[in-house]
Amino acid sequence: MTPRAYNFSAGPAALPLEVLEQAAREMTNWRGSGMSVMEMSHRGPEFISIAAQAEADLRELLSVPSDYAVLFLQGGGLGENAIVPLNLMGEKARADYLITGSWSAKSVEEARRFGEVNVVAEASKPYCGMPAPEHWRTNSQAAYFHLCTNETIDGVEIHELPFEAVPSGVPIVADVSSHILSRPLDINRYGCIYGGAQKNIGPAGLTLAIVRRDLLGRAHAMCPSVFNYQLLDQSGSMYNTPPTYGIYIAGLVFQWLKRQGGLAAIEAMNVAKAQALYDVLDRGGLFYNRVDPAYRSRMNVTFFLRDEGLNQAFLDGAKAQGMVQLKGHRSVGGMRASIYNAVPLQAVQTLVSYMNEFERTHG
Amino acid sequence: MTPRAYNFSAGPAALPLEVLEQAAREMTNWRGSGMSVMEMSHRGPEFISIAAQAEADLRELLSVPSDYAVLFLQGGGLGENAIVPLNLMGEKARADYLITGSWSAKSVEEARRFGEVNVVAEASKPYCGMPAPEHWRTNSQAAYFHLCTNETIDGVEIHELPFEAVPSGVPIVADVSSHILSRPLDINRYGCIYGGAQKNIGPAGLTLAIVRRDLLGRAHAMCPSVFNYQLLDQSGSMYNTPPTYGIYIAGLVFQWLKRQGGLAAIEAMNVAKAQALYDVLDRGGLFYNRVDPAYRSRMNVTFFLRDEGLNQAFLDGAKAQGMVQLKGHRSVGGMRASIYNAVPLQAVQTLVSYMNEFERTHG
Repeated sequence: MTPRAYNFSAGPAALPLEVLEQAAREMTNWRGSGMSVMEMSHRGPEFISIAAQAEADLRELLSVPSDYAVLFLQGGGLGENAIVPLNLMGEKARADYLITGSWSAKSVEEARRFGEVNVVAEASKPYCGMPAPEHWRTNSQAAYFHLCTNETIDGVEIHELPFEAVPSGVPIVADVSSHILSRPLDINRYGCIYGGAQKNIGPAGLTLAIVRRDLLGRAHAMCPSVFNYQLLDQSGSMYNTPPTYGIYIAGLVFQWLKRQGGLAAIEAMNVAKAQALYDVLDRGGLFYNRVDPAYRSRMNVTFFLRDEGLNQAFLDGAKAQGMVQLKGHRSVGGMRASIYNAVPLQAVQTLVSYMNEFERTHG
Repeated sequence: MTPRAYNFSAGPAALPLEVLEQAAREMTNWRGSGMSVMEMSHRGPEFISIAAQAEADLRELLSVPSDYAVLFLQGGGLGENAIVPLNLMGEKARADYLITGSWSAKSVEEARRFGEVNVVAEASKPYCGMPAPEHWRTNSQAAYFHLCTNETIDGVEIHELPFEAVPSGVPIVADVSSHILSRPLDINRYGCIYGGAQKNIGPAGLTLAIVRRDLLGRAHAMCPSVFNYQLLDQSGSMYNTPPTYGIYIAGLVFQWLKRQGGLAAIEAMNVAKAQALYDVLDRGGLFYNRVDPAYRSRMNVTFFLRDEGLNQAFLDGAKAQGMVQLKGHRSVGGMRASIYNAVPLQAVQTLVSYMNEFERTHG
């Protein structure tokens, strides 16, 4: 049996080994129920307890205020790009969007199906930072202000959102898919945050949305019932059959996160992991990163070899040492090390050692 | 460790034990990849091979013609109730719907968001059969004719669809959620069949749609991209991240079905299982079924105790013998034994013995 790989996938991504081992142990018979979690009615007491525990643990980890609904749904981040305007544009039928990378650009395209989209500012390509807030053309009548706080493809993260640049009274909606749970977050500053699960939460197919309840009840007449935030809130995310196994795995991840010490502890680890990689990229060797240092992602470290002709040799050598899924997104090129919560420090250390060695042997 | 239960859940439902055992074995390291299937990029060679094999096996099992797209998507059957009209109503913006039970009635409600719905006929309640085709008020200008061929809640199955009652040229769209793969099906007679996976396919959160390709390309402008059948077909169901683990489990189920001998063999087994139960219900003892014998479901056997005061005693006694999830849907009451492909004959035999015993001790 080959050992476990060091998995730098951008998503679906590495999960904690402890979580996978527990899922394997419980696969055919969950805690004496005689059933796999996959085989349980979502309305039965066993699964109800699993879902309730998952929501409670998530609320604790993220300090979700009680006036926010926690919704487990389907469709992924790109699905939410449509579901958000279907639910939140309301009668205004207009919203503000900030573009800082590939995902926020896609969000704009999708939102245009449902109303008037005002792009408040667009970062120039290649994406490597955030347009200065003094140049944002916001609209105080917007139904919401949308942004993506971590751009998975480009490796651009907004560490400090300039909340004062958003007109007061306009709810902020953030696609947090690829850095949720990597650090504490003050949800009170947002109207809605959402994300696909397949980075820091669990398996693909599960989507999370956390929505301030006063924003519910304004869904478009053409919003499918299963994606209506208000119906989902009223039914405890069980308006129809939810992705039950995904919720179960997410619950195991939340418990693992609590065992790590919660989000403050995991943030410290994430800072250390990212710093170790950026240190290699910044010393002027064979590698470089092109993102503005103030906006470098802790989750998705994009980098390039100065000699692109060495790309394949770099990937092959990495694979030989058990490091996989390091190739950059096809739209950006180069390399990308996604180092989500479940990627252990040892994986990053192994990558750093390998990059050092690669510079010695190819410099 | 308690043994595995005899699981009669209507969905999420029993899965083959072999499938669960294989999933458990492969959980932390899929075939030497060093990764769980949950941790794989959907664009990597490992998962691409898993998805391609799943689609190929499904096409073989169902004899899917090459001019039909096989789409793996999200949202469940109720999600598809919206996604179907968003994709298929087209400029006509009208469709015919037949109501034979709780699910087809829900489909009508959902479709009304997107266009004009003509109910061709509605079975009277409690649902126990299909309105006679000579009374259907069809519309030859309908974009499609929709029905649900197995009503999970009511236990009503349409074994022989009167195709000649549907105007020629109007594509037939069928919600087959709860009996797909239980028998051979002539897909050529349909424009589209769809269903949530959580009965005969795999885990909840995965949805299947099989669509004749000439019906693609007429999506409503407000159809979210991730639910646009044409975009899904063009991208091999990878327009965005699909529910990867669900597709993997479905693939294992398809391989298990092939090992059982395919759909003709599984149909013979399903006939035998259903007959054993209906025989008990028909002999005039403590139990009865109220569905027209020509429309009784092989998958969801609904039944009642003549003395409803014995309901709890019946459920308690069943549970004591390892039989779970036998309670009927809250909207119907009574009992329901869902006996999908993965419910072994032994489970049905155990239930029959228990019902015999219950009649002796409570008669």
